[in-house]
Amino acid sequence: MKIQIIMGSKSDMPVAERAKAILKGFDVEYSINVASAHRTPDALKEMVEHSDADVFIGIAGLSAALPGAIASHTTKPVIGVPVSGKVNLDAILSIIQMPPGIPVAGVGLDRGDNAALLALEICAINDKKIMKQMERYRKEMKKKALVK
Amino acid sequence: MKIQIIMGSKSDMPVAERAKAILKGFDVEYSINVASAHRTPDALKEMVEHSDADVFIGIAGLSAALPGAIASHTTKPVIGVPVSGKVNLDAILSIIQMPPGIPVAGVGLDRGDNAALLALEICAINDKKIMKQMERYRKEMKKKALVK
Amino acid sequence: MKIQIIMGSKSDMPVAERAKAILKGFDVEYSINVASAHRTPDALKEMVEHSDADVFIGIAGLSAALPGAIASHTTKPVIGVPVSGKVNLDAILSIIQMPPGIPVAGVGLDRGDNAALLALEICAINDKKIMKQMERYRKEMKKKALVK
Amino acid sequence: MKIQIIMGSKSDMPVAERAKAILKGFDVEYSINVASAHRTPDALKEMVEHSDADVFIGIAGLSAALPGAIASHTTKPVIGVPVSGKVNLDAILSIIQMPPGIPVAGVGLDRGDNAALLALEICAINDKKIMKQMERYRKEMKKKALVK
Amino acid sequence: MKIQIIMGSKSDMPVAERAKAILKGFDVEYSINVASAHRTPDALKEMVEHSDADVFIGIAGLSAALPGAIASHTTKPVIGVPVSGKVNLDAILSIIQMPPGIPVAGVGLDRGDNAALLALEICAINDKKIMKQMERYRKEMKKKALVK
Amino acid sequence: MKIQIIMGSKSDMPVAERAKAILKGFDVEYSINVASAHRTPDALKEMVEHSDADVFIGIAGLSAALPGAIASHTTKPVIGVPVSGKVNLDAILSIIQMPPGIPVAGVGLDRGDNAALLALEICAINDKKIMKQMERYRKEMKKKALVK
Amino acid sequence: MKIQIIMGSKSDMPVAERAKAILKGFDVEYSINVASAHRTPDALKEMVEHSDADVFIGIAGLSAALPGAIASHTTKPVIGVPVSGKVNLDAILSIIQMPPGIPVAGVGLDRGDNAALLALEICAINDKKIMKQMERYRKEMKKKALVK
Amino acid sequence: MKIQIIMGSKSDMPVAERAKAILKGFDVEYSINVASAHRTPDALKEMVEHSDADVFIGIAGLSAALPGAIASHTTKPVIGVPVSGKVNLDAILSIIQMPPGIPVAGVGLDRGDNAALLALEICAINDKKIMKQMERYRKEMKKKALVK
Repeated sequence: MKIQIIMGSKSDMPVAERAKAILKGFDVEYSINVASAHRTPDALKEMVEHSDADVFIGIAGLSAALPGAIASHTTKPVIGVPVSGKVNLDAILSIIQMPPGIPVAGVGLDRGDNAALLALEICAINDKKIMKQMERYRKEMKKKALVK
Repeated sequence: MKIQIIMGSKSDMPVAERAKAILKGFDVEYSINVASAHRTPDALKEMVEHSDADVFIGIAGLSAALPGAIASHTTKPVIGVPVSGKVNLDAILSIIQMPPGIPVAGVGLDRGDNAALLALEICAINDKKIMKQMERYRKEMKKKALVK
Repeated sequence: MKIQIIMGSKSDMPVAERAKAILKGFDVEYSINVASAHRTPDALKEMVEHSDADVFIGIAGLSAALPGAIASHTTKPVIGVPVSGKVNLDAILSIIQMPPGIPVAGVGLDRGDNAALLALEICAINDKKIMKQMERYRKEMKKKALVK
Repeated sequence: MKIQIIMGSKSDMPVAERAKAILKGFDVEYSINVASAHRTPDALKEMVEHSDADVFIGIAGLSAALPGAIASHTTKPVIGVPVSGKVNLDAILSIIQMPPGIPVAGVGLDRGDNAALLALEICAINDKKIMKQMERYRKEMKKKALVK
Repeated sequence: MKIQIIMGSKSDMPVAERAKAILKGFDVEYSINVASAHRTPDALKEMVEHSDADVFIGIAGLSAALPGAIASHTTKPVIGVPVSGKVNLDAILSIIQMPPGIPVAGVGLDRGDNAALLALEICAINDKKIMKQMERYRKEMKKKALVK
Repeated sequence: MKIQIIMGSKSDMPVAERAKAILKGFDVEYSINVASAHRTPDALKEMVEHSDADVFIGIAGLSAALPGAIASHTTKPVIGVPVSGKVNLDAILSIIQMPPGIPVAGVGLDRGDNAALLALEICAINDKKIMKQMERYRKEMKKKALVK
Repeated sequence: MKIQIIMGSKSDMPVAERAKAILKGFDVEYSINVASAHRTPDALKEMVEHSDADVFIGIAGLSAALPGAIASHTTKPVIGVPVSGKVNLDAILSIIQMPPGIPVAGVGLDRGDNAALLALEICAINDKKIMKQMERYRKEMKKKALVK
Repeated sequence: MKIQIIMGSKSDMPVAERAKAILKGFDVEYSINVASAHRTPDALKEMVEHSDADVFIGIAGLSAALPGAIASHTTKPVIGVPVSGKVNLDAILSIIQMPPGIPVAGVGLDRGDNAALLALEICAINDKKIMKQMERYRKEMKKKALVK
């Protein structure tokens, strides 16, 4: 299984790092790229159409068109991560309020970690190894949360 | 593959119907249930833990805790659909702003249709039949959009 | 001079009609098309790249990516009109909060009329006929506003 | 009388401390625990169902499901404290916009102090000692507010 | 035990009726009055100070100062119900964002029903009869929610 | 003429200082007091009812009930200044969305300066000296704004 | 004393009517005009500069620049009434968030009535007749509010 | 071709600098001035009416009336840049929600850069030199965005 992370700008790296920190602990391939829905639409299209990823994660702030643009070029699941800024509702609403027909799976503001976990949950449906790792991860998380 | 739709209240049925209208056209099993994160938390837990669904769709308005509550009981992907009301930002933010560790895939306000499509995209990763149906669906949609 | 109006969906027609009602009174060519940033990205790209328009008007609601998508394929000025719905801040912020490098000229919610006037003001810079018509239009408007 | 404070995460401690600072001055038992509606739903359920508390205080940020989750497991009064973050309206609306049937008593952003005072007011109804302490507290507060 | 409902204006009656519909099913005294924090501050003060209520419910829209004004005159618990209008965030934020020292227990927009249930939960702490009725109510609600 | 400034809390002093900085330059009496609509409602009432001020300025944050509470005790004009915090819309909407019958004159967030100028404009209607000072102030302001 | 009401557009008449309904009961001169900050800025300037009004009321929706524009041409007090529409926060914030130096007295959404009362309170400072009428009005209002 | 930048206050200079940084690289005349819609309305009017600019850029925060005020005095295209502050939605909505008849082209919060690029796109329609520079700029931007 393969997960492809695309950031709208290099400045979104801290959010991508949160995804990477999760993905490193799982038996899954992943890549991190930069492509902008607005500045490099053709490169983005090519990147998506030539990708062998099973799940995409699009990370973007402001008028965060990136996840929707990825989704317009693929029928693979696309997860969108709004990046925080001065307004915040801009990126959240841009990502979640997609028109009928082209879904994007929105996660919380700056939640690169949850985007990675959601991508892994999707991969896990048909990958027993990842599923077991996911269940272990969840258990560890519970344990940590319960220890004072 | 199986998709399980859970509504927080019977009044959310119109949004579930939008999901159903999509799912009917695909080779996928699905069910629609009612269970409330707040009124019937134990029934919800049992429903989720005993489910053989590959993907869950939680539909809820107001302080829309349902998708997050489903996600707290499973490591399967959970899609959340905020239902419109007098405030709207309540359901949108409740669904999308999940804490680290328990992701929910938020789609747009009342977007039962996109929730179904996202669930199908997830199922399609390992189901060639659904993938083909999804690609056909996408093409039909494009065609309709282009005809004036 | 030529103005090209692109709507994200046929349901945006009432807003396009407001633009048309203005443009009809001026010596300017215009066309109205439907193309979706999300459902038909390639058709949109082709439409924009093969256009001989001097100014574009993109009309879209929800996560209104259309004006930004048009702008990503041209260096002609692009005007964006947010279409009202259940949230409104979604389309307004999606259109106005563009990232650096790819500007969109946002006008008010459902303001197809102002989009047309702005397009005409842009055309008028180098077209004396339109400029005169624009000045006459402004005077008429003032007169009407002052009559009780 | 007993008041049980539950935080969604250890990072909510500063808000819990504000509650503690108030409660220390009153003849009331209280405890502070961590349990997450999303990460440890079963532990939370057990904690609530086995509690002998008269009033609960749930402290949580983001999609602040915790107070509602507590309320779903008890008929004791539950006070919810939204914790500030990058959006703020998320926690406020998640806590206040509860569906019919399962009330939560929302207090202000980060207002652990007011949550404690509200819990004490509730306890005071049938506890003359606390009622007197509460009246004294109110008088002291007035006095301080009036001194320049 | 006694619950006193105070509306800011007669136009808030539909929300008060929702509270009444709940309270009628319980062994609790209650009254419904009109008094405005802004138009009749002295009458409100007298009403609150001479009341023998154990819990107050304040119902108000717009800049909903009523619940806070009630709370300023008593150390009994005060529940605030924001009434919907053209803005909604006005009443929600006015009620929930109380300053330190004077708590109000905010419930959801137009949620007279939840205000009544919260008041009953508070009364039930020291009234076994009400507690049993509350538990029965909760069970009935669950049953209804589970029947399809 | 006399202007009375009332702050809801000593922490609002920086905003009151902005008012003071304006008022010092005019031939007007003024005083600055602290009184809380919620913590000291009776002291506030007395302060307002025994005041000989021509105009009141109420400065408050959060659920900023103070200006409205002042207005409930007088028919003199009351100016409300919302104080910034973590939400901002709370104080702005609490102050501006007054119910019919009891007006408050809302100025901008933290705009103690504009509250003072508005109070002076009101006083100037019947005080030639202040009117002249106001006109001079306005001219000075213009001059400064025009110098580069 | 004279109060001048200026609406940004004829469509704001219902809000102006609310002001008129109040003013008719008082011994005060008033006029209602239409002038737009954007469509007829020169006519507005002339209207304001040649006015003998003691207080202005500006009524406008959307980007409600009218009250601020009136205030830019006079040192008389200017009251701003935001008119409701699809967004509401646009007119509220445009009116209340004035820059330092040029105050506007913002009242609530569509609150033509409160604008009139505020204008009368301002006039009453130096007009005993209006002050008495105002005090009587306030008493009548209280009486009506107290009768059930 | 000539672009005229007008700031509402000297404190908006950092946003104007972003525009300047773009304009310096193009063969276009430009000027930067200060004039306030509220503090110096007559100077603003004169500045706009006597300008030989082809495009105006108005930069302002808070109740950002400046771009609309410029547009009220000219039929040349006017671009509005909202400047960030404590509320942000105030400047965004004030600039974008213009009434019918007087359009303003709103760009993103603090986006002086995009305002400049939009102004250049407008100038480029009839200026081959600028058009070529614009196309080169766009290509450079793409190249930079693609290099990792």
